[in-house]
Formats: sequence, C-alpha cells, structure tokens
Amino acid sequence: MRPKSVIGEAGYVMEDVPHLGDYLLDLPTYSNPLQDNPAYSVVKQYFVNDDDTVAQKVVVHKNDPRGMHFRRAGPRQKVFFESDEVHACIVTCGGLCPGLNTVIREVVCGLYDMYGVRKVLGIEGGYKGFYSSNTINLTPKNVNDIHKRGGTILGTSRGGHDTSKIVNSIEDRGINQVYIIGGDGTQRGAALIYEEIQKRGLKVAVAGIPKTIDNDIAVIDKSFGFDTAVEEAQRAINAAHVEAESVENGIGLVKLMGRYSGFIAMYATLASRDVDCCLIPESPFHMEGKGELLEFIEKRLKENGHMVIVVAEGAGQELIAESMRSISHKDASGNKLLLDIGLWLSHKIKAHFKKTKVSINLKYIDPTYMIRAVPSNASDNVYCTLLAHSAVHGAMAGYTGFTTGPVNGRHAYIPFHRITEMPNKVVITDRIWARLLSSTNQPSFLSSTDVEEAKRDEDEPPKELLNNGKGCCSTPPPPNATP
Amino acid sequence: MRPKSVIGEAGYVMEDVPHLGDYLLDLPTYSNPLQDNPAYSVVKQYFVNDDDTVAQKVVVHKNDPRGMHFRRAGPRQKVFFESDEVHACIVTCGGLCPGLNTVIREVVCGLYDMYGVRKVLGIEGGYKGFYSSNTINLTPKNVNDIHKRGGTILGTSRGGHDTSKIVNSIEDRGINQVYIIGGDGTQRGAALIYEEIQKRGLKVAVAGIPKTIDNDIAVIDKSFGFDTAVEEAQRAINAAHVEAESVENGIGLVKLMGRYSGFIAMYATLASRDVDCCLIPESPFHMEGKGELLEFIEKRLKENGHMVIVVAEGAGQELIAESMRSISHKDASGNKLLLDIGLWLSHKIKAHFKKTKVSINLKYIDPTYMIRAVPSNASDNVYCTLLAHSAVHGAMAGYTGFTTGPVNGRHAYIPFHRITEMPNKVVITDRIWARLLSSTNQPSFLSSTDVEEAKRDEDEPPKELLNNGKGCCSTPPPPNATP
Amino acid sequence: MRPKSVIGEAGYVMEDVPHLGDYLLDLPTYSNPLQDNPAYSVVKQYFVNDDDTVAQKVVVHKNDPRGMHFRRAGPRQKVFFESDEVHACIVTCGGLCPGLNTVIREVVCGLYDMYGVRKVLGIEGGYKGFYSSNTINLTPKNVNDIHKRGGTILGTSRGGHDTSKIVNSIEDRGINQVYIIGGDGTQRGAALIYEEIQKRGLKVAVAGIPKTIDNDIAVIDKSFGFDTAVEEAQRAINAAHVEAESVENGIGLVKLMGRYSGFIAMYATLASRDVDCCLIPESPFHMEGKGELLEFIEKRLKENGHMVIVVAEGAGQELIAESMRSISHKDASGNKLLLDIGLWLSHKIKAHFKKTKVSINLKYIDPTYMIRAVPSNASDNVYCTLLAHSAVHGAMAGYTGFTTGPVNGRHAYIPFHRITEMPNKVVITDRIWARLLSSTNQPSFLSSTDVEEAKRDEDEPPKELLNNGKGCCSTPPPPNATP
Amino acid sequence: MRPKSVIGEAGYVMEDVPHLGDYLLDLPTYSNPLQDNPAYSVVKQYFVNDDDTVAQKVVVHKNDPRGMHFRRAGPRQKVFFESDEVHACIVTCGGLCPGLNTVIREVVCGLYDMYGVRKVLGIEGGYKGFYSSNTINLTPKNVNDIHKRGGTILGTSRGGHDTSKIVNSIEDRGINQVYIIGGDGTQRGAALIYEEIQKRGLKVAVAGIPKTIDNDIAVIDKSFGFDTAVEEAQRAINAAHVEAESVENGIGLVKLMGRYSGFIAMYATLASRDVDCCLIPESPFHMEGKGELLEFIEKRLKENGHMVIVVAEGAGQELIAESMRSISHKDASGNKLLLDIGLWLSHKIKAHFKKTKVSINLKYIDPTYMIRAVPSNASDNVYCTLLAHSAVHGAMAGYTGFTTGPVNGRHAYIPFHRITEMPNKVVITDRIWARLLSSTNQPSFLSSTDVEEAKRDEDEPPKELLNNGKGCCSTPPPPNATP
Repeated sequence: MRPKSVIGEAGYVMEDVPHLGDYLLDLPTYSNPLQDNPAYSVVKQYFVNDDDTVAQKVVVHKNDPRGMHFRRAGPRQKVFFESDEVHACIVTCGGLCPGLNTVIREVVCGLYDMYGVRKVLGIEGGYKGFYSSNTINLTPKNVNDIHKRGGTILGTSRGGHDTSKIVNSIEDRGINQVYIIGGDGTQRGAALIYEEIQKRGLKVAVAGIPKTIDNDIAVIDKSFGFDTAVEEAQRAINAAHVEAESVENGIGLVKLMGRYSGFIAMYATLASRDVDCCLIPESPFHMEGKGELLEFIEKRLKENGHMVIVVAEGAGQELIAESMRSISHKDASGNKLLLDIGLWLSHKIKAHFKKTKVSINLKYIDPTYMIRAVPSNASDNVYCTLLAHSAVHGAMAGYTGFTTGPVNGRHAYIPFHRITEMPNKVVITDRIWARLLSSTNQPSFLSSTDVEEAKRDEDEPPKELLNNGKGCCSTPPPPNATP
Repeated sequence: MRPKSVIGEAGYVMEDVPHLGDYLLDLPTYSNPLQDNPAYSVVKQYFVNDDDTVAQKVVVHKNDPRGMHFRRAGPRQKVFFESDEVHACIVTCGGLCPGLNTVIREVVCGLYDMYGVRKVLGIEGGYKGFYSSNTINLTPKNVNDIHKRGGTILGTSRGGHDTSKIVNSIEDRGINQVYIIGGDGTQRGAALIYEEIQKRGLKVAVAGIPKTIDNDIAVIDKSFGFDTAVEEAQRAINAAHVEAESVENGIGLVKLMGRYSGFIAMYATLASRDVDCCLIPESPFHMEGKGELLEFIEKRLKENGHMVIVVAEGAGQELIAESMRSISHKDASGNKLLLDIGLWLSHKIKAHFKKTKVSINLKYIDPTYMIRAVPSNASDNVYCTLLAHSAVHGAMAGYTGFTTGPVNGRHAYIPFHRITEMPNKVVITDRIWARLLSSTNQPSFLSSTDVEEAKRDEDEPPKELLNNGKGCCSTPPPPNATP
Repeated sequence: MRPKSVIGEAGYVMEDVPHLGDYLLDLPTYSNPLQDNPAYSVVKQYFVNDDDTVAQKVVVHKNDPRGMHFRRAGPRQKVFFESDEVHACIVTCGGLCPGLNTVIREVVCGLYDMYGVRKVLGIEGGYKGFYSSNTINLTPKNVNDIHKRGGTILGTSRGGHDTSKIVNSIEDRGINQVYIIGGDGTQRGAALIYEEIQKRGLKVAVAGIPKTIDNDIAVIDKSFGFDTAVEEAQRAINAAHVEAESVENGIGLVKLMGRYSGFIAMYATLASRDVDCCLIPESPFHMEGKGELLEFIEKRLKENGHMVIVVAEGAGQELIAESMRSISHKDASGNKLLLDIGLWLSHKIKAHFKKTKVSINLKYIDPTYMIRAVPSNASDNVYCTLLAHSAVHGAMAGYTGFTTGPVNGRHAYIPFHRITEMPNKVVITDRIWARLLSSTNQPSFLSSTDVEEAKRDEDEPPKELLNNGKGCCSTPPPPNATP
Repeated sequence: MRPKSVIGEAGYVMEDVPHLGDYLLDLPTYSNPLQDNPAYSVVKQYFVNDDDTVAQKVVVHKNDPRGMHFRRAGPRQKVFFESDEVHACIVTCGGLCPGLNTVIREVVCGLYDMYGVRKVLGIEGGYKGFYSSNTINLTPKNVNDIHKRGGTILGTSRGGHDTSKIVNSIEDRGINQVYIIGGDGTQRGAALIYEEIQKRGLKVAVAGIPKTIDNDIAVIDKSFGFDTAVEEAQRAINAAHVEAESVENGIGLVKLMGRYSGFIAMYATLASRDVDCCLIPESPFHMEGKGELLEFIEKRLKENGHMVIVVAEGAGQELIAESMRSISHKDASGNKLLLDIGLWLSHKIKAHFKKTKVSINLKYIDPTYMIRAVPSNASDNVYCTLLAHSAVHGAMAGYTGFTTGPVNGRHAYIPFHRITEMPNKVVITDRIWARLLSSTNQPSFLSSTDVEEAKRDEDEPPKELLNNGKGCCSTPPPPNATP
C-alpha cells in the first residue's frame, strides 16, 4: 500500500486514505440521501468539505511547520453507493471490549437510518466466520437493545485469517462494504483484505474500526472501551485497598490489562489514589537489589503497614523469561503468550518475605474478565456511535482501506499502516508518567542506563514523526492529556 | 483587562494571560523544585517551553490561516514563589458538581508534593467565607479520601461576592495564591478580584478553575463532572423507559440539568438510545399546532404505545413565561430563576390528553440532586487532577488572572474574558444535533423562520472568531466530537 | 368465603385455604410428575406432608397455647391436573415493583420444567387485559432474560376489575389456572374471581401472589421487591446527605414510598445512619408548637448546620388535609389519592424559615420511580422464585382461592381474607420504632394522648389474634426482626 | 460447659446460655437505663419477658412435640452493670466479611446511646491484639461513617489465640464486656475465654457475634454479609456468561467462597439463572466416566455452544487430593488449607478437550476478594445493627458465654457449643438443592451409592435433633427458605 500524501503551505502534510476511485474508473456517484433527511434540515453545512483535514499537532510554536494531517471523517455530498445496492457485513475479532455491541448497533442503525441500506450481515465468530456457514441478518430491531449488554452478539475469535478465502466469501456473497472491528492484528488482516480486493478490482469498501481495551493503538486519541475499563478497574483497586488495610503487612496486588502498554494500569492508578506502586511494560524494574521492588515493598510496609500494587499484565516479562528460561510462543492472533505476571509476582514476594521471616498477607486480584465483559458506559456509548457513523460515512463515500478514530477530538480517516506500524505506549519520559510516580511516591526503578536508554529511544524517531505526531501519540486520552 | 496578544506567521495569534511581572517589576525567580524531584528524574523535557501554545483550530484546510492559540499549561523552569513563601487558599462557589473534592484534593497535594508548599487554607461556604471566620487548614492527610465523596468539603454558596472585602481578607491573611472553583458567575468574580489585586499592586496570583456540570463554559473541551453527570443520568432515563413501557400510553419524562445549554440532555440521550424526544434550551418548540410537541406525542404513543421525553431544565422558558406572564427574577448568583419545566410540561401534557379523552400515564422524574451529589467517576478524577495541577503550575510560574482547561486535549491558560463572555451552547445547526434528531426520530419543531434565524445566528459572529474557534466551541467533548 | 379451620392439641389452630375438591366431587388425581424428574432423584422426602403446617407464632412461653398455623406450601404427591390439561394465565396489576418479571419468569419455568405444562398465557395490561384482545404466549425461551429488567413485560394497570367479564374470559379461553400478581386491592379482586368461579363450579385454580413494594401486606414476612427498594433508596438518602452537608443550613428531604405504612422509610433510615428525622404514616406529628417538627429542625440545624429528613409518602396526611380542606378522591384501584407530602413539607419548611429570617437551603428528592423501576436484586430474585414455585405447586395440587408467602421463613398458603383484611403497619409501640428514634435521635412527636391511643390500639385486637399473630405482623422482615 | 436446659409441656425444651449469676453470687442489679430514654417512651412493653423463648421448629404437625427453644434476645428490665462501670472491648478475627464495620459501629453506638457506656476499646488485629500494644478508643464520632467502608477498621488476623494471655490482658485492662466477632474457630476460642473467665471468677461477660461469609454456621437463619456476597457474586457470573457466550465453545468458570458449605454458590446460582452447573462441597462428583462432569460439559457445549460453571472453593477436594496425593496442612485458624479447585478444574477441563481435539475457550474468574471487601448492603446493615444490639442487651443483662443470631426471624441467645459443634451445610437431599438441579438442568453426579449415603447421613442424627433442628439447619436464609 503506497502512502497517499498531499503537501500544503508552511509544512502542511496530509496523509490520505485510498478510495475506490483510485483503481476503479468512472464509478457513478449519487446525491447523499442525508440531504433529504428531515433530521438534517436545519444543519447548516451538513457535508464535510472534501479538503477538510484534522491536524495531528496541537502543541505548537509560533513559526513551527504545520505537520501531519488526516482526512476529516464525516458525510460527503456525493456517495459511491446507492442505498439498495449496498450489502454490508460486520465482523468482530479478538478479545472482548466494552462497546463492541454499541459499535455493531450503530453501524447497522447508521446504514439503515442515514442511508436507507437494508442488507447488513453479521459474520459470526471472527474472521473464520467468513468461510463457515453461520451468519445473521442484522436489523435495527434485532440490535435495538444490545448496547446494554457486554460482549459481542456476533461472537469473536482470534486468528483464522485466510485472506483469499475471506475475499472469496465476500465476492460469493455479493458483499460490497466490509466493517472490521478488531485490534492491530485484525487491522493488519483488514489491510490484506483491502489489498486483495483492490488486486481483484472489486467495488468493495473495507473500513476498519480499531478495538483495543489497552488503548495501545497509535494516532487515535483513545480506543473505545478504555474509559469503561479504567472505571471498572476501580472496584478491584478498592477491594485490594480494603483487604490490605485490614491485616498486618497486607499487600493487595491487582493485575490489569495491558500486554504491551500500561495505559489502563496508569490511568486506573491516577484515578484511584489508593495505589502505592504501579508497574507497566514500558518501565523495566528488578526484584532484588538497592532501590528495586522488594526493597520498596519492605520500606512501604514499614511506613504504612500495608500497600497496594497495580501491575499491567505485560510488565516484567524479561524477569519472568529469565526466571523461567521459557521459549516464547505465539497465540493464534500473533500476540506473544505471556505468562501471568500477577501469579509470578505473588510467588516472588511471598518467597522473599518467607526468607526474611516477615509475615505478610498478600491478596492477588485478577479482575480482567470482570472488566472486559461489562457494557460500555455512557461516554463510550457516545464515542462508539460516532466511530461507527464515521466508518459508515467513509464507506458510503467510497473510501476504503482505512480505519477511523478521533485525532485531537475530531474524527478522521487514517491509513491502516499508521495504526498498525507501531503500538501506542506510555512514554516514561513524558510528564504523565512522572505525575504517576509523584502520586504513588514510588521509585522509578530505573538505573542510569535505563534512563539514558529511555531518553535515547525518544530521540530516535525521525524528525518528521516527532514534529507531527510525537506529543500526540504518547499522551492519548484527551481531555485528560498532560498539561 | 486588556487582552494580551502575540502574532505569528500564517495567521497565528496567541491570546495570552496576565502575569505578575506585568505590573510588579523585578520580581525574583527561583528554580522549579520539580527538577530535584526523583519522580521527575526520567522526564526528558519536564518544563513546558515558554512559547508552547495550544491551537484552538484542529479542522483546517490546506492554506488556512493558523488562527487562535492559547498558552500551554504546565510547569515552568522558573517559578515566582519560594515554597515556604506560598500561602494558598481554595474556595468553591455555586452548585454541586461531581469532582469538586478531587480538584480540592489535587490543588492541595499538587502544592505539597510538587512544590513543597505547606500553607493551604480552605475558605468555607463560597465567596462570603472570605469575610466570615470559618476556614480550615488543608493538608494531604485531611484531603486524602475526599475524592471518594460527593459534594465539597469546603461547603459552597451562591453570590456573596464583595470584591473589596474579599481582597481585604486576602491581604489581611497574607494569602498570595487564590484558587477559585466555580461557574461563569464565579469566574467573572475572579476576574474582578484579579483586577483589584492588580490595582493594589499585590503579589497574589489568581487562578480560576471552571466548574459547570452543564458543560456551558466556552473554549474548553468539556467541564469536569459532565461525564459523571451524563453517566448517572442513564439511571433516570432507564427508569423512565421501564415505567413507560409497563403501562398503556406510558410517558416517562426526565428533567436533566442545563439552564442555558442542553449538553447533558443531548449526550444522555445519545448515550441511552431509549429516548423518543429531547428538548433543550437552544431549540425552541411549541406545544400546540401542526408538527409541534403534543402532536408528536400523540403520534409516537399511537405507534409505540409509550415514549420517553428528556427535557433540559432551561428548555421552553418562553412558553412558561408566556403562560405564566411572570416577571423573571434573579437568584443570588445572577442566574435567572427558572420555573420548573418538568412540572409545567407534565401539567400541560396531562391537560391535553384529558381534553382529548385519551388516557395516558405520565411519570415525571427529576434526578437533579441525585446526579449532582455522586462522587466523580474515574475519568473525571483524572481530569480534575490535571486541571488542579495546571492551575498550580500556572500560579507558581507567576501567571494570574487566568483560568485553565483543556483545548483540543491539551491543557492551556485562558484569559477570563474568553471563558465568561459567551456561554457554550449546543449549536442546533451542527451535525451533532442532527444526529440526535436522527437517533430519536423526533421532528426539529422548528418553523422555517426558526431555521433561518438559527442559521443566521451562526453567521453573525465576526469572521475571525468563526475561523478560530467555531468548530471547537460548538462541539465540545472530544473524543466524542462530531466526525 | 367461609374460613376453613383445623383444631389440634394445646391450642393449635390451622387456618386452611379452599381446594377444588371442596366444591367439585370425584376429581381425578395424578402422580406428581416431579417424582420422575432426575433433579429430584436424591431428594429424601420431596413431597410436603399433607398435614405440614407453618406456625405463625415463634416467640413463645413455656406453656403458651400453640396458636395459628397455615398450610405449608410445596409440592404434593398427588396433583389435580394432568400436564397437557393445564392452561395457565398470568396477570400483573397495580404499580411497578422490582421482581415482577422474576415472578412471571418463574411461574412459566416452574410450570414447564417441574410439571411439563406447555400452555401459559400472559394477560397484558392488568385485569382489563382479560377482556381486551392482547395476550402473549409465554415460554421459557421468551422469558429467559426478563428477570434482569425492571417493570413487567406483561404491562400493568390499576382498576379495571369486572369480575363477571373476567370469569367469562377465563371460561371462554379454557383457562384452568389463574396466577394473579398484585397488591391488596388486586388480591381482593382475586378473591371475587375465586368466588365467582366456585359459584359457576369451574375447575379453575386461582392463586394470588402478593405484591407491594411498601411491605404493607399482613401475615407474610416481607413482600418481594421491598429489599431491593430499601437498597435503592440509599442512593437518594446519600445524595440528600451530600447536598445538605455542602451548604449552610442545608436540608435534604427525601420522599420514599409508603402510602399507609412506613416500612421502606423506616428500614432505609435504619440502614443508612445519615438520617436525622424519619416521618411515617403510623406516627402522627405536627408542624408548629413545642416539641414539634419545625422546632426540631431549628434545633438540629443549630447543632449540626444541616440535616436529612426522610418522609414516607403517606405521612402527615391529616396535616395536608387540614391545610388543603380538600376532599379525598379515590384512584382506580381504590387507594386514596394522596397529595404530595414532599412538596407540601418543602413549602411549609421554607415558609417557616422565611418568616423567621433564617436562610436555609432545602433540596427535595423524590426517587420513587427510580426505585420502582430497577430490576430485583439477588435476594429478591431467589425470593420471587420460591414464591412463584409455591403458587405453582399449590395450583397443581388443586388448592385455590389462596395467596402464598413466607411465614417465619417457611412458605405457606394463606386465605385471601387474612392478607387483605388489615394492612401491615409499623407498630410504633414496638421496639423497632424505638430503635429508629434512638438512632436518629429525633423526638417521637407524640402527645401523651397519642401515646395512650397508640398503646390502646394495640390492646384492641382480640386476644387470639394477639397471641397468634402479633409479633409477626408488627415486626416483619426476618432475619432483620427485632431481637 | 454443661448445657443448661429447661423442660416444658408437650415436648418443649429450652437450651439456655450461662449467666454471670451462675458463678457469682449476690451480684447487684440496676434498672435498665432504657426506661428513661425518650426514644422508648412510647414502647408498650420494651423489655423482653424473662421467659420469652424462640422456637427452632416452625414446620410442624398437629400433635408434634414442641421441640427446642432458645432464650429470646433483647433488653431486660434489670441490668447487671452500671453505665460508668462498663469497660467493653471489641475484636474482629478471621477473614473479611461485608458488615464487620457495621457491627463494630453498632456495638459502640448501642453501648453509648442505649446504656450510657463511655469506655469501649477496639482490640487491633484479631486475638493476638489482646497481648500486643495497639488498641484504639472507639466513640460514636470515630465510628460514624465506617459502615460505608468494606473491611474492618480494627484489622483482623487468623489464629493467635492464647487463652491465658488473652484473659490476663482482659483482667489487666479492667475490661468487663468482651465482644468477639468471628467464625466458628473464633467462637470456639470465645468459649475457652468464657471458661477461663468463669474459672477465675471474673465479672466479665463474653458475647460472641458469629461471622462467616459462607453462611456455614448452624442454628442461625443466615450469617451477616452473606446477602451482600450473593449479590456481589452476580457480577462475576454475569461476566462469565458474557465471556462464554461471545466465543465458540466458551466456558465461564467462577469460583465462589465456601470451604465447607456451598450456600453462596447455590444461592448465587439460583439468583442468576445464567449458570449451567453448580458444584459444591456437599455434593461429590467425578471428572471422568458416564454421567460425570466432563461428559456433561461436552453435552452442554454441543447443545448450547457455551456454558457457565460455578464452583464453591471447597468442592471436589477429594479429587484434588487424589490427583495431588498431597498431605493436608492446617492454616493458623485451623481450617484445612485447600488447594484451588478453580485452577485445578480449569487445568483438567482444558487437558481433556485438548485430548479430544475439541477447541474450547475457558475463562476462569475468582472474584473472592472483590466480594469480601465491599461494604454491606442495606439489608445486611439492618441485620448487623440488630445483631450488635442483641449482643449488647445480653451482656448488659449479665448473660455470658453466648452467641447471638436470628432463629426463624427472631433474635436469640445461643450456647457456643450449638453454634460450633456442627457446621451448617447444604443438605443435598433437601428440596432447595433439587430446585437448583432443576434450574441448571445439570445431573446430580451422584452414584446410587452416593445417594444412599446422602440419605443415610440424614437418618443418623439423633431423633431429637432431627425433630428440633433439621428443617432449620438445612434451609437457612428465610424468607428465601424452601416452600
């Protein structure tokens, strides 16, 4: 997929998404049916200007170059599908995340209510559902209440991506709009589907809707379900706090989601104020030695008599690897199978205090599935609605091979590769992490070598990226971003 | 207060905030104590560059002028107060709002933990507390758990603003940092305090923290507590839905907060999907006549057998005024005393159906105080923390006469007048309102005259404002903003 | 309906319920299909002995008479209906109450799973649904998830009871088991239906399931939904407490359900511990005068600066009546239309303090519909299940003209008249009310005349009743009953 | 401890509790101060008659013997302590349970408000706190809000019981009322303390308040916190259901509390209706073989595509023991250290399906600490209040060596040995378990030998016990007991 770019004044760059018209010539266009929709009769300028873009860079200096922009999401004056021509399908892949059902509901209702579409197919059980027989017709009526339930009514699975079989199925069924909801592995799969479709020259729009409860997808402000997850994580932290406070040398240990990035752990810690130590994949630590974790636990127990530790599931993997000398495996979706840091840490801490003959009382809580399975909260419900509608507007307007999401609070169409090439991570040299350290009053656990490395990492990205996206990628969820 | 502006290339304008140095010459400066804070040792570039600004305009065209910017919030390399010199005070004014206690907690903890300040005074009972005797010493210990409680531990009141007595009290007590949490009336009061302090030539920094559960404050992305309020409003809407569904011709009527703006009603409706009609102050409607409310209610009851109506407290005031012929009064804070639209509407609807001899079953729910009094959710907790810290960094750096808040996801310092000159309102010619109409499938209730007027209103603001701030003011809470 | 009684040794009396065999001779009986149900294969003695009874009297002296007993609920060895002969119907009447859907679900599932019944009809919209056309076939599949929703899927209404038309409809439709869920008015209606059916000599079993969120039904331990209501009421009391504490002279006033009895108000107050004054219908009070309400409010505000008042909707009706000189009306179900004590009290309190020139800040919360509409909690879910199954076992065993409910923790069949002849009320001369007064530290508001009258009231019931039922009626919800 | 019994007519037996007067002669008595308490001025007969008893048997036949009775709890006309003579202490032992703080609060407030006591000491950290130095003075002010928090403000621990050191400490500190909150191990310890105190001839009343989240304490209707635990368990079951439904062959496995008894698992299953299989310690099962667990899982997955399993922590211990060939250890409080059945079961199920090459998706949830740590709900709050007040009334009246709790909804004083001699267990030959099997539609997993044994077990208890207590022990929480 070659990047499409547009250059403007004062360093303005727009990184564009593909369009059906890029490879299919002379496609007919139609008036957007929204213009006859009474709900929109008052809207002043309903359609997004073709050249509206969304700036990735918000913090600027007086004479800075203007940097990277994305195509603004929203309805276009001309659409590339007639209402009764559309045959859409929706698929959900990967782990559960609050809001999946809201996205499904709103793709269906958006297509029906805004564009008069009548054929929407639910593919059951993830990618492999394309070439198995179970599908379900989706209508506003049968999706009406699903946003109040957790999970996904379509079912989901990991892996099962066979590009060619999937595109065969799309072709055989006469589907011409494909909505794919899933994480970075899934979005990479969506890119392959788009490429195969383009190669075959099909008039099929492929729209990705990024899903990751961990908030580890780059470029976009935050991922849906993240807010709900941070909220729900408070219950586990509260319980850990109560358990720890009620016994002598009580330690409450909570494992939260986050294989490669510690956003849930970090935000849950910042929101709670009951946490004494937060461990994330991005910030290495050691167990033994001066200034390291076990020493800190001893110190905090001596001072307060109890403590709460929050650990992201992907933290301390090197330590586990070292102590296990295990070979890393891959699960079906291509993520590394990580061993359970929570159980590992419990074991190590207990063993240490047994050795030092200090009696402790450790309670380990893993609320992962209880968090993933709740329905989305009000804020995520609104967010999922806009996400779904943006995807629908984009596909109707003939865009394809794109993903959608908010950039600085404005929804935009983003090329797949920008979303998948690099995960979003907590930047431990940013102030948000310093603020966390300050609030927990924990040490950074970093050696001077670690610090240099961390700072160097930040230097490495090419100048252009730094100018355009840096600040943004690293400090995602507005309006909670760093001052 | 004369605006301070900085002009740059390609139409760049920064609207700056005052600084103690503007009227006090040769103030000494000190190194920011954060640079010796171990929590910040890894931070790459902890201090905000003096010329960092935050762009108000995110949706742009290729060769657009760059528009309005604000000074970026955050810690500065040099501070204008020594730690043991600072004597801060905090006051909360106006109605309750989820998050007040979190803001109080984080101003206290921010001053203590980041800047080593030891004297923070809580002014009790709003502005009038300045010249009454009750105050409370605030310490990290006594504010430790307050973020888990609703309300404000300082107490609050409306009105009671006597600039001269307040500044006398500030001078008498030797206070040199004033943190004022409150709505637009309160912020106008803060501006007067700043002006009086400047006139007296005092080294006192005045920082406003905007509070409005209604989200009706301009410029900033959204106000704290708003997210919690929309979430909590779902309970009332759910109850109304259940009540309405369980009887013949059931009508569930929910009144939500929003004197001058309908954001809570609008977002609660969008999040819920159970609402058939949403009425807000910005969108006029009539009871009687073709295409008006009563006709719509009749129609919807005939179709579905039940319906849910959400009404913002400030909606339909002209109708009430007309039917009451009452003279508007002012309450202590200067807001109009509004008569209860919920009870008025209940009465009118019941009377109408009595007349038409259709038996209906109306249940009216006013959850206002049950919403206002809950503790802030996780998202608002994080937001309040950043807000409080931004205010602290600003005051320490010598800025004064400013308010703080996120603009496109980045916290900024904003001159009082930009916050108070015009309330934030739902723009009914924007797509977000059209999306609401589409989701409820309600008529717009607008006559062609109304429509023209609504569209004209939007034309009136001076060109510059439109270019710079338009999109932003009208569509606040990212990342839920319109695609 | 003549009472059926059985007399035993040492003062044992059983008050029995009617049976189809009382007026239909030579009815065939069948083996209970439960005995072939694998789930019951381990049960030692599955069937209730025909002469098992439940004692109404638990607190006893050594040589006391044994008192009133009821027939124990549960499955019988012989049933009077064959599975494929049964055509049941369910109707819900009156106001909403948490647990209605669970009862519906469990009558359906109980009939299907335990007795192999396949024809269950839902009558929509209360009693009048019998002679209107809308009904719905109920199956385990379509009731599967309804217990997670508030309200009643059958719809409900007040009044509409026309015995003869209802029994015509039952006869016409070939219904032979009628399950009627509703309050005391509804149960009185059920008694009339039973009598008409008996007069016509139909083989139709009529089972009542008592419903009253207020817990004002006599004999049974507590009514379903009551527990959920008390729980949900805590939200409103918490909000009132937060609002009151946050302002000077803050008064939080919460109106809770309870037209004739103050159980919800009393238990919600005991559970909360934040309430300063609880007003219930059973305990008269005055506004003005020494030791009366306004004086107490003044005193408490002077001491604490704020207070929370909980008022049951039926409290103070004489005061309203007096000040309104209004004539009492009847609503459709025969309950008095009560004027809103909450609004009346707000007005009176505000007027008083305006007169005395003390500035107060009163916030009135009416959470009624938000409480009624929630789904039942776990405890009520289990309770509703047992209630529904008891009704099913009773009807299958040929009992009719009965209502069912727990007496001292054991489910029993109770004649209608015992349920409807006298409402359950808080006995203000019992210790539970004294405990409340002690916990709120409020005055009793009773004149010496009131006290004498209250004590006399208790003397009036005939000796037998006192011995048998006293302790029980007055101190309902075990295991929360008075020590 | 010799049992004290009173025999009456028609088979009436009262099993009494000790009294200080049993071993201390000529103790002075005083008027109960409650009689001057204005809150109690209306109470008709405030004091419990000395010979009031509570019947353990409620389900009876016409000419049954009257069976076992307990002394009724409540205030007595004469008390054996003067207000300013009392020096009480409170201790909490064992694991956390919702309601601990409410009990503490109400013992303190009960002593202060009802009896004018001013010296109440909190012993910190369980039994061993008696002979360590940390104690805290408890006053109505410092316990005012603690019922809204989970855990115990006194801290807790297991074991640490050294009778002689504890009684020394009681003697040294001049304590004369000891309130001991804990499970059966703790109550056994309380019995030893009582005996030692009696041996030393001290005027010290020892009152036990039974605590067990598992509801496994005999005689009493249900234990505090149980209701809250069942409620909170619904979250985990809901999550398991959502996870299971969203994937192919999804299995949601939830482990709930219950080392020796399956009440939480059983009631949570009955309340939820989403569970396919419930495994408890009382009902043995096997993994392999016809009609056993793995076969049932295969069958249910084939039928429904997903399933939810709830397992009590003490279920299947024989299986684990067998597969582990491990020696059982004892933890500090004397309970067997049980290996985690949840993890064991997960492993076994996964291994089985790996072998049979069926791809399954098992999610294991252990919500134990998230359940234990929540604050008590409204129902438990009221219950804890009555429990605490009963204990206070008993100790003031000179009773000692007793525990307190509701029996058939009336609070009673019960000798320690009746509480500790035999745990309360789910009786799998009772109808409540059959009802569960019927609702989940799971097999009983019992061989014919198991069935015979289960039925025989029930035959073994001596006749008298069966008659008196049977129905009660086996079917605890009224009003949810079996019909």
